[in-house]
Amino acid sequence: MNQWKNLDTLKAYQEMKNDPHRVDLKKELGGEKGAERVASYQVPMAAGLSFSYAAKQVDDKVLAQLSALAEECGLAGKFEELFNGAVINTGEKRLVLHQLTRGQLGKAVVADGTDKRAFYTEQQKKIAEFAGKVHRGEIVNEKGEKFTTVVQIGIGGSDLGPRAMYLALENWAKKNGCFRMTAKFISNVDPDDAAGVLCETDAAHAIFVLVSKSGTTLETLTNESFVKDALKKQGLDSSRHMIAVTSETSPLAKSSDYLAAFFMDDYIGGRYSSTSAVGGAVLSLAFGPEIFARFLEGAAEEDKLAAEKDALKNPAMLDALIGVYERNILGYPATAVLPYSQALSRFPAHLQQLDMESNGKSVNRFGEPLDYVTGPVIFGEPGTNGQHSFYQLLHQGTDIVPLQFIGFRQSQAEEDVVIQGSTSQQKLCANVAAQIMAFACGKDDDNRNKYFAGNRPSSIIIGDKLTPEALGALLSHFENKVMFQGFLWNLNSFDQEGVQLGKVLAKRVLAHETDGALKAFSDLLNI
Amino acid sequence: MNQWKNLDTLKAYQEMKNDPHRVDLKKELGGEKGAERVASYQVPMAAGLSFSYAAKQVDDKVLAQLSALAEECGLAGKFEELFNGAVINTGEKRLVLHQLTRGQLGKAVVADGTDKRAFYTEQQKKIAEFAGKVHRGEIVNEKGEKFTTVVQIGIGGSDLGPRAMYLALENWAKKNGCFRMTAKFISNVDPDDAAGVLCETDAAHAIFVLVSKSGTTLETLTNESFVKDALKKQGLDSSRHMIAVTSETSPLAKSSDYLAAFFMDDYIGGRYSSTSAVGGAVLSLAFGPEIFARFLEGAAEEDKLAAEKDALKNPAMLDALIGVYERNILGYPATAVLPYSQALSRFPAHLQQLDMESNGKSVNRFGEPLDYVTGPVIFGEPGTNGQHSFYQLLHQGTDIVPLQFIGFRQSQAEEDVVIQGSTSQQKLCANVAAQIMAFACGKDDDNRNKYFAGNRPSSIIIGDKLTPEALGALLSHFENKVMFQGFLWNLNSFDQEGVQLGKVLAKRVLAHETDGALKAFSDLLNI
Repeated sequence: MNQWKNLDTLKAYQEMKNDPHRVDLKKELGGEKGAERVASYQVPMAAGLSFSYAAKQVDDKVLAQLSALAEECGLAGKFEELFNGAVINTGEKRLVLHQLTRGQLGKAVVADGTDKRAFYTEQQKKIAEFAGKVHRGEIVNEKGEKFTTVVQIGIGGSDLGPRAMYLALENWAKKNGCFRMTAKFISNVDPDDAAGVLCETDAAHAIFVLVSKSGTTLETLTNESFVKDALKKQGLDSSRHMIAVTSETSPLAKSSDYLAAFFMDDYIGGRYSSTSAVGGAVLSLAFGPEIFARFLEGAAEEDKLAAEKDALKNPAMLDALIGVYERNILGYPATAVLPYSQALSRFPAHLQQLDMESNGKSVNRFGEPLDYVTGPVIFGEPGTNGQHSFYQLLHQGTDIVPLQFIGFRQSQAEEDVVIQGSTSQQKLCANVAAQIMAFACGKDDDNRNKYFAGNRPSSIIIGDKLTPEALGALLSHFENKVMFQGFLWNLNSFDQEGVQLGKVLAKRVLAHETDGALKAFSDLLNI
Repeated sequence: MNQWKNLDTLKAYQEMKNDPHRVDLKKELGGEKGAERVASYQVPMAAGLSFSYAAKQVDDKVLAQLSALAEECGLAGKFEELFNGAVINTGEKRLVLHQLTRGQLGKAVVADGTDKRAFYTEQQKKIAEFAGKVHRGEIVNEKGEKFTTVVQIGIGGSDLGPRAMYLALENWAKKNGCFRMTAKFISNVDPDDAAGVLCETDAAHAIFVLVSKSGTTLETLTNESFVKDALKKQGLDSSRHMIAVTSETSPLAKSSDYLAAFFMDDYIGGRYSSTSAVGGAVLSLAFGPEIFARFLEGAAEEDKLAAEKDALKNPAMLDALIGVYERNILGYPATAVLPYSQALSRFPAHLQQLDMESNGKSVNRFGEPLDYVTGPVIFGEPGTNGQHSFYQLLHQGTDIVPLQFIGFRQSQAEEDVVIQGSTSQQKLCANVAAQIMAFACGKDDDNRNKYFAGNRPSSIIIGDKLTPEALGALLSHFENKVMFQGFLWNLNSFDQEGVQLGKVLAKRVLAHETDGALKAFSDLLNI
């Protein structure tokens, strides 16, 4: 049995904390040996990706300490427990099964009388059949015309992950002849969100995917009504334009309001649901089910690597350990995610939810207050755009912010232009290589305004091209990284009690059951 | 003459630092007196906005200390010096004149033999004339057809600000009958960015706005070539489809490659350029010059408030002071910007550049190292979306993150739906009111997993509706806030030396003039 202990009770951690070993990146990367370090400090990932940590503030001694920490914490065993169906989400008393949507790492997991792997694959099959019928024109609108657009209605994990994945593959699909339908997303309860999307959508040829696990998410139900009103005004029959993704026990599951319903369950948290029906419906409609299947394959391959016991061969585990080292030993407060790929423009927003909602906690998995810091602030924008924005602070600000770069050797569209002797893609890659070194090694200058202190750590995930498989591997990598960090911090990465209080108070405001400052703020906002 | 001194040499600061006075928000806001506090702790802004700081960790004593700090630092006098044309950007030896694009707060500023206010308004007039001709079909494409789309090519300040402003007014303009042309943006040197935008743009009816102050920004010139290639392939004459926004001395200024050129100058930093020709061309084409003029009016009105000497009547100054208090006295490392308005979806990304590039510095304006922290990490997404994403960490994480809410009583599109007894807009507003109180006052619970510590500070800017004037006022507020914080930290908010090293190294990579680790990373990326 695995022991669930707080990080600060582990010997390996205490040793690092009591006698921190500071690695000077300028020395490690700056000299002749730098190239050797780059060659050796990397781990292969799935789909041809690799994780390079040569520009992190670690050396063989720190890596040995982190390996010892992984072992003492029992990271591999805890993951095994998770994928074999233990109740890892202790607060909500739930299994954690998102990996089962794309593979099976251990024994069969049976819950509620069902083999869960079979349940998830059955949903994928149903979605594939449905998408095929839409694409072949067997499911059509009232006039017998083909659907051209899919609009996802969902919020949080029903929005951020699927949206980021769609944007990541949109241009790739167009280039590779598998672009089937344009996807759009309505998420915010702000009525201007739905109004704006509908204003530029040909609703007569659109399928709307209503996504809510419980079937009670207020924002999503509100936006559903908004859309239904708009369809009605156009003389359209909404039940011929809407499908639902929900749990089998939800009020939406068997409603005649929908063309079809596809299911997920309580064992998949919203922020971990991109590989379930939540991402599956919209992505299969947009790109075809075979592309969604390739995305799942990439994730499954990467999951296998996460089950590796040796931390130095397990990219997600290693990334997690280094992150905890930076947060708890080196004391850095935030992490920037910087994909050098325009297609990943919303990937940082997805990771923001994934990471901050999972590990932004102050109590351990037994509900006891923790004496150490946990999840950091996560933010980011694509490079090279970020270089012309907030990199000034990253290079010369007073706080050190660890960086997570992502880069690909080739573009997706393979359209390019040569200017000043290099292609755009070469410029893009040259910039990320240059940034890594600029952050790590800095630059001396007598003019302190032009001085760069260096020792600002980064890692990079490098791939050939952002394909469906590579995207699946990337997604899995970060999901598993966040999970391992949750294990290290000994917290429950799979609940989100912190979102409840706001909901309760908002209901009270809408019911006009407030007084004092809450009533005063409500009055200011004319509610 | 103003004295430029480091923050930690100021008596008012030292007093706060030595004897910090902790304000308990639970007490201040939670009791019966909470409503009074909400009523009194707000300052009017322009365009009907107001800045509420009732949920900040301040009381009359702290406010008096901050007022004393403002006076000792000479904030008002320094702003006066700036708007009267002093060389405030000491590093680059430049005036700082972005306020002059929308008004004139002090005496005439003459530089390079020109009255600068006259210069900026002349450019606005030229843009207005050009936009009018395009809208009336007097400037047309090769076939004599009207242009329908405007595509901005620029990066950093030539992208983030104008893009955020466009998105902020797009739905408003559609609702109010002043939507003229769809705007799109190409920024990243990643060729997939330009390829993706062009793929969904009818180039034959598009005007491209090339924006580069120096005329040498590599990303922008590369994207220009990419676009020119694409136009050529479609048999289009690029010189009939492109205009330039640049400085008069740039190589682009008098080129026959462009239909027209509009000018800005070195006295307007990229991140402060939304109200110059950089934002003016694209916004005037998209919405009409009269809408751009209304946006400028809102900014000008807000600038006037920033010139107010009493900190408690000056929203930008007060916001700046409270921010420095949170950063340097209370020790909070980041700030989240949370607009409850989908139209402001990219406003946080603009503020990220504005704030982090301006104040992410480690040296004072004389190039001397600073002994205190400066600009924080800035991040954010619109509410209610963020509530379903990273708010978990904001509520229950181990770090306290100060929050900057923005909310409007009415939606832009004025289309809404009533569900469960309230409109979407009411739900949106109820949520932001609820969040403020949830963060400030928390909730006790014996189950520590459901416990909210509270004392998480926020401010809110509240307006009736996001109009062009309100948007201008918002933009000005944050520009002036950042400026005042730069004065407090005694640094130069108007240069960005931290972006140089990466550029130099990237050039070296492209020239294959590297060795060691940089060569190794370049090889990994196949450059």
